[in-house]
Amino acid sequence: MQNKAFVLKSIKNVVFEDRAIKPLGPKELRINIEVTGICGSDVHYWQKGRIGKFILKDGVDMVLGHESGGTIVEMGSDVPQSANLKVGDRVAIEPGVPCRFCSLCRDGLYNHCEDMKFAATPPDDGTLAKYYSVDYDYVYKIPDTMSMEEAAMVEPVSVAVQIAKRAQLKATDTVVVFGCGPIGLLCQAVAKAYGCKKVYGVDISVGRLEFAKTFGADDVYKMPFKNDDETPEQFAIRVSSDMKKTLGIDVHGADVILEASGAEPCIQTGVFLARPEARFVQAGMGKEFVNFPVTDALVKQLNWTGSIRYSTGVYPTAVELVAAGKVDVKRLITNRFKFEDALKAFELVKEGRTDVIKVIIEGVKD
Amino acid sequence: MQNKAFVLKSIKNVVFEDRAIKPLGPKELRINIEVTGICGSDVHYWQKGRIGKFILKDGVDMVLGHESGGTIVEMGSDVPQSANLKVGDRVAIEPGVPCRFCSLCRDGLYNHCEDMKFAATPPDDGTLAKYYSVDYDYVYKIPDTMSMEEAAMVEPVSVAVQIAKRAQLKATDTVVVFGCGPIGLLCQAVAKAYGCKKVYGVDISVGRLEFAKTFGADDVYKMPFKNDDETPEQFAIRVSSDMKKTLGIDVHGADVILEASGAEPCIQTGVFLARPEARFVQAGMGKEFVNFPVTDALVKQLNWTGSIRYSTGVYPTAVELVAAGKVDVKRLITNRFKFEDALKAFELVKEGRTDVIKVIIEGVKD
Amino acid sequence: MQNKAFVLKSIKNVVFEDRAIKPLGPKELRINIEVTGICGSDVHYWQKGRIGKFILKDGVDMVLGHESGGTIVEMGSDVPQSANLKVGDRVAIEPGVPCRFCSLCRDGLYNHCEDMKFAATPPDDGTLAKYYSVDYDYVYKIPDTMSMEEAAMVEPVSVAVQIAKRAQLKATDTVVVFGCGPIGLLCQAVAKAYGCKKVYGVDISVGRLEFAKTFGADDVYKMPFKNDDETPEQFAIRVSSDMKKTLGIDVHGADVILEASGAEPCIQTGVFLARPEARFVQAGMGKEFVNFPVTDALVKQLNWTGSIRYSTGVYPTAVELVAAGKVDVKRLITNRFKFEDALKAFELVKEGRTDVIKVIIEGVKD
Amino acid sequence: MQNKAFVLKSIKNVVFEDRAIKPLGPKELRINIEVTGICGSDVHYWQKGRIGKFILKDGVDMVLGHESGGTIVEMGSDVPQSANLKVGDRVAIEPGVPCRFCSLCRDGLYNHCEDMKFAATPPDDGTLAKYYSVDYDYVYKIPDTMSMEEAAMVEPVSVAVQIAKRAQLKATDTVVVFGCGPIGLLCQAVAKAYGCKKVYGVDISVGRLEFAKTFGADDVYKMPFKNDDETPEQFAIRVSSDMKKTLGIDVHGADVILEASGAEPCIQTGVFLARPEARFVQAGMGKEFVNFPVTDALVKQLNWTGSIRYSTGVYPTAVELVAAGKVDVKRLITNRFKFEDALKAFELVKEGRTDVIKVIIEGVKD
Repeated sequence: MQNKAFVLKSIKNVVFEDRAIKPLGPKELRINIEVTGICGSDVHYWQKGRIGKFILKDGVDMVLGHESGGTIVEMGSDVPQSANLKVGDRVAIEPGVPCRFCSLCRDGLYNHCEDMKFAATPPDDGTLAKYYSVDYDYVYKIPDTMSMEEAAMVEPVSVAVQIAKRAQLKATDTVVVFGCGPIGLLCQAVAKAYGCKKVYGVDISVGRLEFAKTFGADDVYKMPFKNDDETPEQFAIRVSSDMKKTLGIDVHGADVILEASGAEPCIQTGVFLARPEARFVQAGMGKEFVNFPVTDALVKQLNWTGSIRYSTGVYPTAVELVAAGKVDVKRLITNRFKFEDALKAFELVKEGRTDVIKVIIEGVKD
Repeated sequence: MQNKAFVLKSIKNVVFEDRAIKPLGPKELRINIEVTGICGSDVHYWQKGRIGKFILKDGVDMVLGHESGGTIVEMGSDVPQSANLKVGDRVAIEPGVPCRFCSLCRDGLYNHCEDMKFAATPPDDGTLAKYYSVDYDYVYKIPDTMSMEEAAMVEPVSVAVQIAKRAQLKATDTVVVFGCGPIGLLCQAVAKAYGCKKVYGVDISVGRLEFAKTFGADDVYKMPFKNDDETPEQFAIRVSSDMKKTLGIDVHGADVILEASGAEPCIQTGVFLARPEARFVQAGMGKEFVNFPVTDALVKQLNWTGSIRYSTGVYPTAVELVAAGKVDVKRLITNRFKFEDALKAFELVKEGRTDVIKVIIEGVKD
Repeated sequence: MQNKAFVLKSIKNVVFEDRAIKPLGPKELRINIEVTGICGSDVHYWQKGRIGKFILKDGVDMVLGHESGGTIVEMGSDVPQSANLKVGDRVAIEPGVPCRFCSLCRDGLYNHCEDMKFAATPPDDGTLAKYYSVDYDYVYKIPDTMSMEEAAMVEPVSVAVQIAKRAQLKATDTVVVFGCGPIGLLCQAVAKAYGCKKVYGVDISVGRLEFAKTFGADDVYKMPFKNDDETPEQFAIRVSSDMKKTLGIDVHGADVILEASGAEPCIQTGVFLARPEARFVQAGMGKEFVNFPVTDALVKQLNWTGSIRYSTGVYPTAVELVAAGKVDVKRLITNRFKFEDALKAFELVKEGRTDVIKVIIEGVKD
Repeated sequence: MQNKAFVLKSIKNVVFEDRAIKPLGPKELRINIEVTGICGSDVHYWQKGRIGKFILKDGVDMVLGHESGGTIVEMGSDVPQSANLKVGDRVAIEPGVPCRFCSLCRDGLYNHCEDMKFAATPPDDGTLAKYYSVDYDYVYKIPDTMSMEEAAMVEPVSVAVQIAKRAQLKATDTVVVFGCGPIGLLCQAVAKAYGCKKVYGVDISVGRLEFAKTFGADDVYKMPFKNDDETPEQFAIRVSSDMKKTLGIDVHGADVILEASGAEPCIQTGVFLARPEARFVQAGMGKEFVNFPVTDALVKQLNWTGSIRYSTGVYPTAVELVAAGKVDVKRLITNRFKFEDALKAFELVKEGRTDVIKVIIEGVKD
């Protein structure tokens, strides 16, 4: 028995390897991975070897990939019957398992656990392998009607569901989403599925905006280029004035801003566009520091927060949104590759073309 | 009958004038002002003629001052008995009255009302006059045991109470307050009065820090100078490590950051020092934009917000904190001036000496 | 000019009267009422002369009705342009205007204002008259595509929107609504419009349940009769077990209970059916005291609250839900009467037939 | 090596036994118990053999006790260094350890875990033994300045801290606590330590009220006897009217009710005494059902919830409150017994004398 894997050996250096199959922990399941989506962070580790404090150390390699679906092939000795899982079950995999013992874990804040083991975050191996093993409670059965591609897409949908959770998104909200990449588009679709009053998409790419209008956005705005003569504040005033016309005279800006681009001008526009006491969730990661319109945010008592990974209940909600057809993730998958062409898949994502939304890689059959 | 007033005619140009006494609205009270504190914003209007979107227009003058206590001398025809007010009552004055009709007012968010009339905010006259008139529900009776100086100090205490409210400050919190000016010191004292587990003060002035330790702070840290070799992140790591030693191994940073300096390095340090999902309230106003450590704030899902003016219940709480001796505001009053020396008072505040905390001006006797 | 009105003179004694037209306050609008729905409370005042502390005093009469739509026919001298209203505008009317001065009003809790003037709540006249006058900010323009019948229905939709607001209803919630009268049905429809995961309706009437399934409920349960051998706890266990089968093994009961029946067995069942830390909103009014399963509620740290009338933003949301076709209120209107047949309308509602959902009365043309 | 234990064999039948010492789990600590407090629930199991769904089965016995402090005598092989624990450390013990795998645990709601192992809750053994073993993260080091009696008292203080947490207790709150038993008294002391504006104690015993006034309450009220002519509603009106006189005309009742008696008339009074949108925490357990003033609670949109056991951060806060001298638990210990006199201790608690507050039992020396 072998465990073929797509391994980052060092910066820009990936290879296929036959890995040993690790013994299964008593509460673990072994999953045969069938589909894996590529995320920007996978490409980032490949190209740069680090994200923030997570650094690929010299001489330590790491299997890439963390957006996966697969089938249970083996169960640990101590997986309880109450978990209702069995060999052959088709599942989506939540890629991070926390320590369960620190005060953050005990308080339900497991996405902040400092002893988290997260797929494809150094030094922990990812899911781009034939087999991946994970604690049974971080695995979610999918209905027969859901495809394995959809199972893999549950990961980015979960990122969007977590963002919506951080925003305390309600049906009475008017929502502006900055960025129309996979996460931005999914934020728009989730906001729509949550019944939000009005969902706007903002991006710099006209093509992406056109797609957004057919996906989750009620309306879209093109972000001005930097060298345009419209500043973020002016752009925000224009959009805000449009909102007053459409939504009513007593509207003082957007109720919720979901920032999924990480771009400084978008962050600035988002602050200016928010109504007093609006909720703003920063989800897009770009520079470590941005020039932030702090006085405007202070005066309107903006409720700003970030969103990272997932928390309890997020994965089940994402599975349900996909299974019920409320978020049509299949439309986001633009490119498919065989496992042996994983490198080509990574190179395509690296190009950053606006017509490439989500790239997926087939697994290795059991 | 005359209404002597200290009037800002144009930038850097203040005069004493005898103003006409306006007819009293049916729900208004006329107050004989007895003590007024000077706030940085008063000095700012005097020197610059504007704060943000509030601009002293050419040819329009404005009475200065908004931190006042006084005595009721006349009551409007429609002040209800249930208000329990009468001529001769000694009161603290909340200096802004909103429109009561917009959706923000109706929702209890009156500090955001766009038709707010706020003392000494263009174009509305302030309280540095013999008489000031204001709706009866924005006036708060003080007990006989409270002095008029204390009544005037209820305004900055209210600013701190609003900051604490925005922070949802609880006794279980460890709190770091940046800035040891009047508002920072009062934030520390309010946090202490609220039973907070541990209250830290941070400032660049050793003198201010020494005062802070005798006022509301359990412990203090000196903010590094810009040209020091300790960056905000390094400083935060040092303080955080101290906290772990004092408060326990499972402490991941401060629960609450109250930023009352407005200084960029303090804001940055505050973010780095916050534990995951901490609350951060920006209260100090400085530059319109600051260089904000957005990735760190995102990853820890920091709950950032601002605090502006006051909201319902804040003034009564401030009166109670002062009346019960929980916040000893008298110790903050370092300098006293006669009404006719108001300009000297303003000049002293403008100097920004660290031994000058709060400067007050006597009113004009009725 | 006359103001024909349907007046409750004393218990069980209603007459038509020509009332004087009151002078219009400076911030008021005069509305020509075109459609009014009948609410259970109207019938209650007619039959009993009181609800709780609100009592029709001897010798004091009161116009009935408070669910109305109409057209602006006159505007007070001080209605601001920013209100964007003019004679001829078609509007839904929020039937209670608070004092705007007490601490509850200032805090955005105006539904608790002790000086509230509420239509058809003693001693304040209601809307079953040719004209009704009301402060301009408690009136909401409806789009041309909305009918006057729909405008009148905005009131019960607002009651349901307030209930949803009290429940902090989110799309991730599984919701059980007790009662399939107008408010219960609207709660189900609002929950559905808010994207809730699963919405259940419960009632004792099979006919009502069948209607509910075609309206807002995904699924329904028939409430056992009192003399059945299934207790509230047993019934809750059965439903809860069904939920586990449908929604997943790790489901511990309903996330949200909306109680719109006021019936003791429903309240008890709701508590038993709630998951730990669920939200429970009591909206149905019945007996002053009920036998409440306090230990079960304590142990699961149930978050119980009530819902009364409306708060800021509720009416605009209700208008939007109706205008956007998200809540199809027309289907609830089962019976229509001319103004002169108002008594017949009241008698029909009094009968309490399960095939009568909402009864409306035409207004008197201007 | 022996493990002497005080064991409930069957209803009303307790014996001393020498138990085997169980092998220590890899993440467990073995504690030599030095002091144990007796709780009403211990007595209840002794007398009735059950509380709610927890039932002492035939032929299954159980060690009693769950309020304990002791010293670490042995550490599991897998207790991490980061836990900062060693043999000889003096600790307070949180008596329930959850499964860590269910959705409730993962969401930080571990007090609802259905697989919780809780000391002296059937079938799990309690702490009235020479040794007790428990996972390392449910053990809290105490400072040298704290006594073992205080360590044992951390348990009831934690119950009060959890109640305060459920109430979201803030310094701006006026709090009424029903019941002046150990938990009620501790709720009053915690509210005082949290800086609450005003803390009232209510009880039926004059002696207990007198003690309360010297402990945490600012003021007290004697609960009327059932056969008095003052109903709960009348009593509430009287207290509420007193509050208006003391606290101000615009006070509409108590901000927070903490119900620690479990008595029906207290629960009713609490509801009537609460201001609109007040918070009410039910902590006292009595009858399964009570006659609840549901209409009053509905109309005021009361926020009612329960409090059970503890959650993350509660034990550390309780240790800190005791260690800092903010809650003087020593004054609550009225009676002390040797381990071999445990039965006498239980009998004394069973009597329910008002001069007996907390009874403690010494442990068996290592």
